[in-house]
Amino acid sequence: MERIDFSDIKITGGFWKQKQELVRNTTVHAVYNRFKDTGRFEAFKGDTSRFEPHIFWDSDVAKWVEGVAYLTMEKREPELEAIVDELVDDIERMQDDNGYFNIFYTVKEPENRFKYRGCHELYCAGHLMEAAVAYYQATGKRKFIDLMCRYADYIEKRFVKDKDTDFITPGHEEIELALVRLAECTGVMRYLELAKFFINKRGTQLEDGVADWSEQMYCQSHLPVREQTTAEGHAVRAVYLYCAMADLALKYGDEGLKIACEAIFDNIAGKKMYITGGIGSSHEGEAFTVDYDLPNEVSYTESCAALGLALFAHRMLLLDADSKYADAVERAVYNGFLSSISLDGKSFYYTNPLEIIPMHHTRDVSVTGKSMWLPVMSRQEVFECSCCPPNIVRFIPSIGNLIYTKSNDTLFIHQYMDSVSELEIGGKKVKVTQKTAYPVDGRIVISVEGADIKIAVRIPEWCESYKGKTKKGYAYLELKENSPVELDFEMKPEFIEADPRVTDNCGRYAVQRGPVVYCMEGVDNGDCIRDIRLDTGSCFTVGDISEYGAPILKIKAYRKEKSPTLYRKKTDKLVETEATLIPYYAFANRGETEMQVWHLIK
Amino acid sequence: MERIDFSDIKITGGFWKQKQELVRNTTVHAVYNRFKDTGRFEAFKGDTSRFEPHIFWDSDVAKWVEGVAYLTMEKREPELEAIVDELVDDIERMQDDNGYFNIFYTVKEPENRFKYRGCHELYCAGHLMEAAVAYYQATGKRKFIDLMCRYADYIEKRFVKDKDTDFITPGHEEIELALVRLAECTGVMRYLELAKFFINKRGTQLEDGVADWSEQMYCQSHLPVREQTTAEGHAVRAVYLYCAMADLALKYGDEGLKIACEAIFDNIAGKKMYITGGIGSSHEGEAFTVDYDLPNEVSYTESCAALGLALFAHRMLLLDADSKYADAVERAVYNGFLSSISLDGKSFYYTNPLEIIPMHHTRDVSVTGKSMWLPVMSRQEVFECSCCPPNIVRFIPSIGNLIYTKSNDTLFIHQYMDSVSELEIGGKKVKVTQKTAYPVDGRIVISVEGADIKIAVRIPEWCESYKGKTKKGYAYLELKENSPVELDFEMKPEFIEADPRVTDNCGRYAVQRGPVVYCMEGVDNGDCIRDIRLDTGSCFTVGDISEYGAPILKIKAYRKEKSPTLYRKKTDKLVETEATLIPYYAFANRGETEMQVWHLIK
Repeated sequence: MERIDFSDIKITGGFWKQKQELVRNTTVHAVYNRFKDTGRFEAFKGDTSRFEPHIFWDSDVAKWVEGVAYLTMEKREPELEAIVDELVDDIERMQDDNGYFNIFYTVKEPENRFKYRGCHELYCAGHLMEAAVAYYQATGKRKFIDLMCRYADYIEKRFVKDKDTDFITPGHEEIELALVRLAECTGVMRYLELAKFFINKRGTQLEDGVADWSEQMYCQSHLPVREQTTAEGHAVRAVYLYCAMADLALKYGDEGLKIACEAIFDNIAGKKMYITGGIGSSHEGEAFTVDYDLPNEVSYTESCAALGLALFAHRMLLLDADSKYADAVERAVYNGFLSSISLDGKSFYYTNPLEIIPMHHTRDVSVTGKSMWLPVMSRQEVFECSCCPPNIVRFIPSIGNLIYTKSNDTLFIHQYMDSVSELEIGGKKVKVTQKTAYPVDGRIVISVEGADIKIAVRIPEWCESYKGKTKKGYAYLELKENSPVELDFEMKPEFIEADPRVTDNCGRYAVQRGPVVYCMEGVDNGDCIRDIRLDTGSCFTVGDISEYGAPILKIKAYRKEKSPTLYRKKTDKLVETEATLIPYYAFANRGETEMQVWHLIK
Repeated sequence: MERIDFSDIKITGGFWKQKQELVRNTTVHAVYNRFKDTGRFEAFKGDTSRFEPHIFWDSDVAKWVEGVAYLTMEKREPELEAIVDELVDDIERMQDDNGYFNIFYTVKEPENRFKYRGCHELYCAGHLMEAAVAYYQATGKRKFIDLMCRYADYIEKRFVKDKDTDFITPGHEEIELALVRLAECTGVMRYLELAKFFINKRGTQLEDGVADWSEQMYCQSHLPVREQTTAEGHAVRAVYLYCAMADLALKYGDEGLKIACEAIFDNIAGKKMYITGGIGSSHEGEAFTVDYDLPNEVSYTESCAALGLALFAHRMLLLDADSKYADAVERAVYNGFLSSISLDGKSFYYTNPLEIIPMHHTRDVSVTGKSMWLPVMSRQEVFECSCCPPNIVRFIPSIGNLIYTKSNDTLFIHQYMDSVSELEIGGKKVKVTQKTAYPVDGRIVISVEGADIKIAVRIPEWCESYKGKTKKGYAYLELKENSPVELDFEMKPEFIEADPRVTDNCGRYAVQRGPVVYCMEGVDNGDCIRDIRLDTGSCFTVGDISEYGAPILKIKAYRKEKSPTLYRKKTDKLVETEATLIPYYAFANRGETEMQVWHLIK
């Protein structure tokens, strides 16, 4: 199976066009301004007088550059391009003769290079390489990628040839998948081998600077990667690693890596993933915890982790056209990832909780003066640790990457987005068009020009209306010129339950319509939304889409009256009310308020 | 209204006789042995070579001595008395010429006396005084109380006359209520005045050694006590303070203190008390938090706090014969207090959670190597901070204190325990007998010998069967010689709901039979007890009492099947099962297992 790059795809309308325009018109500038305000760009000039650079500022800026490159692919942005060109000049000037580049270690601690495994040097290098590849592909300018090839060569020299670094594999993965991209772009196989080196070494020995094997688990080094069968430790690191494992499994036909990836994916999707596609439920270590431990209120569920899950799951499709992977992509993209950006495109969530109870934020205030750890209740414009905002800037413009893959003569359609694509299928150049308002409704019209082709379309896991034959969740169809295929996946709001081992959700139900998970907010439903019981005997009213891009839902509901005493004998008295549900991704856009995904029913 | 001391009351059978025998035969020795093993007794000889004394070891030992005294009142225990006598000799030897006594500061840091408000000196002094009073009353031996009067005199000199201490009021309350007892026992009014001094000064100014007013709230010093209307901060400190406030309100007829106590009690019982009578829901500061914030799994609910609530609520009865106070006593005593001691009398809970999910104890292990903070899952024989075990040793033998109060010619019967009491009511000496198996059932036969008297009997809040006239929850009756009053409060298992503002309990119901709250444990009911739905249309089977002293309950129930996928469309399929509930106080006597008080229903 082969990847189809979004550069061949134009999102032409609908849901994602709106989001891409938001990033182009607002988010890319908002993040730039915040980064500029906080000294991230001047640091690349070696000027750290206003701000102390953070050890992973390189990655923040690199991800933003990657986003600019993706925007540029569709439409040039001369102003942004000028900023990047200046930045690349700065990198050229600051880069060591030997090829080393890292703004923190170059400026602040040159003596500590490649010394501390936990200090994100290779993670930063990876993001710089990804940005350089993207910028070259978008503009044809070679300087940045040439600089980064020199850096990759130097990394190879130190880690593989000289073996004189103080650690062997990076504490935070990322460079592995970046080297795959660098190899693909440049055709230099040594970079692929370098990626394989880091993957193969991982978890084979206790590395310096880490106290014990439990810390090794934090960075997925508790076992050689081919022996790992469960998702462990820091969730973002984990999914970036799994991405590279899937890449190498494909590149080298490495069955051991493929089997490990499959087991890990099944562990995530079967036992460690929120209904929103959020992963990494523990804020301690921003990490996966034990199976079925998915608390709603203290969920960590970092934006980058949901995004990373989508990247990993889509790569799995290249190894096996099983719709469970595309379903996970869809779940993460429309929910746990998309919740990370405000509707106005200017502020961001780092953590994406599934429940907010504002009262709990004052829990310990009388004693400690501050609250217990809970995710923040509203999105912020800037973070000390700003990995998520620029990740959004690069992800949304490149969302088209997730739509297709191809295998010989068959085009696999994994995601539904209003788009026009220029593709080569079975040696034939064709133009494939999707017309759809998805996820407003489940109607998609797919047409082809240039030749007849075979297509395999994903039947989403939430869809029960499709009656045709499927194989691993895909319907295999002929798509002929002048004879569009029309899909119509019935999208009705459904009550969803979790496995009873997810203790937080026992007796509670989520509402999902198509790929979109819904939530209730206090601002629509009053206080104590935990006590609202949705009437499963009633029908949902599917309402307005203008505010959130997917419809508001309303349904008859009930709640208990407040009690004059703290405890009372069970009453059967309920007060009828109407519950309003909005797409989960749109929560917390109207101030700090109660929110929940899992509801009582009657 | 007047107190009736337990020394006039003999518990003759039933539930509490068993518990008292357990303390006499097992617990008092178990705690002694643990204290001896950990050097607490040799510290009183000035020997700290094996162990560094803790700043509140005095209070641990004092509470144990108080327990010995209470056991002695009913039946001499020569062996234990010899230990106490030796200890008192040690105290005499170690006491300063000026009267000061505190094993830590005497031996380790004499230069730091009365310097640190947070270091429990006056708290220790208070417990020593309580022990001295009890030991004098039990044995007639004067030495201990004389030593403690000298200490009280010295405290008065330093704090009231010389005013040369580094703080004004104690960080941990206790001495206030102890001084009231010392004054009552000795007739020395100065001690009552000293208690009043500490109460009146509290919260009137920022005291040294405390950073800000939020820390002041931790020790109830955020406002002058008469202006306090809510329960705040460290729960044990708080209720000990409220006890003394209620004492002084009574002694001095102080209306301001009474009004404050009433408001605070209503805040606790109406918004901050678990159904078990446990209080102090936050482990940060072992403290009260905001209204309705009563999480089940991370509840702190210290044993000493539940016990202290009973002491405070019983004192409120002396100010106002309102059954809400006695109901709170009953709730705390039969549940959140009693859960603190194992059925074999040898091990103890410091915290008393309302829910245990063992899986969560491994939540963060992969990352931090240790769990998030959660209450321990099984009782322990010894704690570094051992305030609770000796508190149990002194509380159970003196449980009779809670049964009666009297007002002129009326005997108020607040609690029901099988007992015989020699009392003076309206100038007449009478013998009052309660025959009851309470809480096995609600039948109580009350008889009197010596004279006819008036009685006021509490109709428990859980009882709906009583049809007579009541005033503030009491039925006022004549009790004539040879004509016993028979009460029969129907005890049937009931489903209880919490105010919907208690977020953890929305959609969940507790089971209570009489005063006893029930729980489900995994050992009886399998995994995932959170998902078990009790059939409210079925009847409970009331079973065997032999194991726990109150019956086991069984009821038809349902559960969902485990799911092949983490999420699925709502199913209506339920598997029928039978749920077994045991008294909450008996939980965790059969190994580490799931436990919950709040259940789903169908």
